[in-house]
Amino acid sequence: MVTVSEIAAALGADFAGDGRYSVRGAAEPSVAGPRDLALAMDAKYAAGLSKGQAGAALLWPGADWQSFGLKAAIFAPRGRLAMAGLSRIFDPGPVIAAGISPMAVIDATAQVGEGAAIGPFVAIGAGVVIGPRARIASHVSIAEGAQIGADVLLYQGARIGHHVVIGSRFIGHPNSVVGADGFAFVTTEKSGVEEVRETLGQRREIRDQTWHRIHSLGSVRLGDDVELGANSCIDRGTIRDTEVGSGTKIDNLVQVGHNVRIGRDCLLCGQSGVAGSARIGDRVVLGGKSAINDNIFVGDDAIIGGGTGVFTNVPKGWAMLGYPAVKVETHIEIQKALRRLPRLGKRVAELEARLGITAPSSNIGKVAEDD
Amino acid sequence: MVTVSEIAAALGADFAGDGRYSVRGAAEPSVAGPRDLALAMDAKYAAGLSKGQAGAALLWPGADWQSFGLKAAIFAPRGRLAMAGLSRIFDPGPVIAAGISPMAVIDATAQVGEGAAIGPFVAIGAGVVIGPRARIASHVSIAEGAQIGADVLLYQGARIGHHVVIGSRFIGHPNSVVGADGFAFVTTEKSGVEEVRETLGQRREIRDQTWHRIHSLGSVRLGDDVELGANSCIDRGTIRDTEVGSGTKIDNLVQVGHNVRIGRDCLLCGQSGVAGSARIGDRVVLGGKSAINDNIFVGDDAIIGGGTGVFTNVPKGWAMLGYPAVKVETHIEIQKALRRLPRLGKRVAELEARLGITAPSSNIGKVAEDD
Amino acid sequence: MVTVSEIAAALGADFAGDGRYSVRGAAEPSVAGPRDLALAMDAKYAAGLSKGQAGAALLWPGADWQSFGLKAAIFAPRGRLAMAGLSRIFDPGPVIAAGISPMAVIDATAQVGEGAAIGPFVAIGAGVVIGPRARIASHVSIAEGAQIGADVLLYQGARIGHHVVIGSRFIGHPNSVVGADGFAFVTTEKSGVEEVRETLGQRREIRDQTWHRIHSLGSVRLGDDVELGANSCIDRGTIRDTEVGSGTKIDNLVQVGHNVRIGRDCLLCGQSGVAGSARIGDRVVLGGKSAINDNIFVGDDAIIGGGTGVFTNVPKGWAMLGYPAVKVETHIEIQKALRRLPRLGKRVAELEARLGITAPSSNIGKVAEDD
Repeated sequence: MVTVSEIAAALGADFAGDGRYSVRGAAEPSVAGPRDLALAMDAKYAAGLSKGQAGAALLWPGADWQSFGLKAAIFAPRGRLAMAGLSRIFDPGPVIAAGISPMAVIDATAQVGEGAAIGPFVAIGAGVVIGPRARIASHVSIAEGAQIGADVLLYQGARIGHHVVIGSRFIGHPNSVVGADGFAFVTTEKSGVEEVRETLGQRREIRDQTWHRIHSLGSVRLGDDVELGANSCIDRGTIRDTEVGSGTKIDNLVQVGHNVRIGRDCLLCGQSGVAGSARIGDRVVLGGKSAINDNIFVGDDAIIGGGTGVFTNVPKGWAMLGYPAVKVETHIEIQKALRRLPRLGKRVAELEARLGITAPSSNIGKVAEDD
Repeated sequence: MVTVSEIAAALGADFAGDGRYSVRGAAEPSVAGPRDLALAMDAKYAAGLSKGQAGAALLWPGADWQSFGLKAAIFAPRGRLAMAGLSRIFDPGPVIAAGISPMAVIDATAQVGEGAAIGPFVAIGAGVVIGPRARIASHVSIAEGAQIGADVLLYQGARIGHHVVIGSRFIGHPNSVVGADGFAFVTTEKSGVEEVRETLGQRREIRDQTWHRIHSLGSVRLGDDVELGANSCIDRGTIRDTEVGSGTKIDNLVQVGHNVRIGRDCLLCGQSGVAGSARIGDRVVLGGKSAINDNIFVGDDAIIGGGTGVFTNVPKGWAMLGYPAVKVETHIEIQKALRRLPRLGKRVAELEARLGITAPSSNIGKVAEDD
Repeated sequence: MVTVSEIAAALGADFAGDGRYSVRGAAEPSVAGPRDLALAMDAKYAAGLSKGQAGAALLWPGADWQSFGLKAAIFAPRGRLAMAGLSRIFDPGPVIAAGISPMAVIDATAQVGEGAAIGPFVAIGAGVVIGPRARIASHVSIAEGAQIGADVLLYQGARIGHHVVIGSRFIGHPNSVVGADGFAFVTTEKSGVEEVRETLGQRREIRDQTWHRIHSLGSVRLGDDVELGANSCIDRGTIRDTEVGSGTKIDNLVQVGHNVRIGRDCLLCGQSGVAGSARIGDRVVLGGKSAINDNIFVGDDAIIGGGTGVFTNVPKGWAMLGYPAVKVETHIEIQKALRRLPRLGKRVAELEARLGITAPSSNIGKVAEDD
């Protein structure tokens, strides 16, 4: 149980009413019980508030809190920001028993910082260094030589590759993988892909090709406060390390290829992908399922919309949409024109009829049948 | 070994010939041996049947079974449905030794139903409740407070998060993840993404932004008969639970974001994704690699084609294709027009020439060069 | 430490200078130390070489090695190929203690070849056969009846399903899954998807539909020298096996559906997907995030660009781009025309104005507003 005044203090927010009123958790307004803090950060929740049983609420600025029969209210000028603070207060985090599970296998040369909690079936390799207060859930593996900062949280089945370097407060979600080998192969002679890149589509000759692996001699280096989502992957670099800057958050099922460099405070949404050797600036947002081609550059503060396929460099601050990606304004204009395109065809045919043009355009009907 | 008459009874199908003829498994007609049931549910398999050695077959309605030298035949009016029944008969399922492996770590307060089989390296947390006859393969983790119904099957490395609620007959494929934290972050001040959403592409000002995590206080709630594919993820809700209705089947590498609500009997094909807070009705089909934007609604019985990117609400029963998604008919019309588009440009140029229009359109050639 | 002459011999390359000069690893030219081999396979690295401290380097053909103050130099006519050989020399591979970990659970009927190294928390089922010199990292599971060749490397958390057959030198990256059940379901009566496929968008009737699982009776069969990336999946076949030919390399987060047949020496890049029953020839390249529809055929040596969605058969040797996929040349032509499309609309309006056409085309302005 936490009191309204304690919550308000933690959020840096104002409150009204009985600051000693205590709550156990948070809930949507319409289903909140007397000991839930109802989350009504927008006036649209007023009806829900009246319907529910909440004794206290997080309200939009200026709300007439007493009209809802509340004992106390906290006011949130920026609702989602208040949610961040509030959810931190009420989230107990995963339960991992203090100390090291007897069912963990930790190499004698590994150093685990003070206050760590390590679950069963965890494997930690030779020479690993882990900072204080790490919470490591069951089934995690940390391979030889990895270095991990303070206060990290590794969920079940997270995989940390050998010699990976990770900053403090990293969160690795279940089954995420940091430091798998990069996907880099080469053929003895020029491959079909190389030919097509050079000639834009023409193949000169087709021959056998065996792919030789280019092993990743580099590693992965993550800054502080990085998150990596469930089943997401960051591959090692070929020679130098793949890098992700501090504060960057990566969602589920995201691929970060070898040699990629990502700046600070980026968001990579679910199922997005960054191909090998691409560089991403600071504060860049990659929407869900978006893709960044290999070897290109995305400038600081660029915003790449959902499903967008970026094949060329993106200047600083641009917002992009489409496949292939264009500026958002261009994308909207093209989409409008596309929807009018069948009508445009008819208008051109009408113009041709007016001018008595039949040949060589008389095969319009035929084209339609062919399609 | 199973007899033809037993199989026919299990499928609710008719048979002809020697009902006591027994088979050991099923096979394609051309490679079937004498003790395989040849699967020839369509007349196009007739040649294969003649080539193979099958003693019995599952045949299309009206087939002249004796002409293929068979001892017995079962007739399948709806072939794929018969395959479902048949494959159930012949699939032994994964081998998990009865009882609880001595190499599993199960919290003393967890309740495991009667008849469960739990493999090695399984971790089950405090307060977990699992129904009868669960089959739990090696390396599975079930975190504290999770509740799971009867007859579930959890494959190797499946991860069930804390306080997740799952119905009966759930199948969790290898390395699937139910109940990772949602991907929800907020900046102290308005972020670039918020600006772009409001202004459709214009950035007013670019400034530093640190992302604050909004912890997921909600959980995940799955109905009965749900399946979750290998390496797929369902995230927890922010306040209320993320929900998936009974009978919904989810393929491999699929992402279901936080707060999403999915109805009953849906199919989510491989690598599809549903972004945060989207709602999906009943019997909806999401094709492979399709994407549903956050906060939108897809009506009952909608069918979203492969690779489709849905950015706006989809009415009940609509079939959609394209990126951005449009109705299937519209998509086909646009694609046809697109293929004719280069020719349309030439026709317009010809019209202009007829009318002696040169300025201001005389830069057509130049545009082509610029591109 | 390895000498320059040893490296040159291993690469089949020429060297100049002191062949006994020894190096410890490889590095980028500008940061190389005296005991690193600087990787400067292109003249563009000349400045970096001068800046760094390398005593030896891998150089482009014809480079004036002495001008960089090097003790020795190796010459690489095809730089990336040299990288493959070089990275193999310097990559120690994962550390897995020789022998079988006491914390592994191996069925008494399993056969593990000579010289295997098996880490902790590995589970190997009944009747499994593994060739000599296998390296199996922690947390791997190999289910009953699987057969695996010589010299395989299975990383942490890799999952091998029951009765899967894998050739020699397979590399399974962390949390990859071979042999999960296929995603195949059928409804008792015709489903909405079947209707839409037949009618291209028209739904006649909407009714309840329960999905019945078609169990996978087939398995997965991989040739020699196959790689499967982190968190990637290959599903089992329905009746016959899903097959991947020798030498094919699969990147992270890739989906290979049930019944798929992939030829030899293909590359499947990150997040690509191949839907059920598709067939892929030899030496095919699937770019990142590309998708192959179910039941279609992609010919030998085809190259499918990044993000491409292939819905129809692709002839041998074609290079494809776009969604839906077209030949690369066509894609480029369509994209050019699209960028000129808004201007084309204006040119048609001007032609109409010249001819005094207002009705029925006078609603052009209105259309623009509607959009």
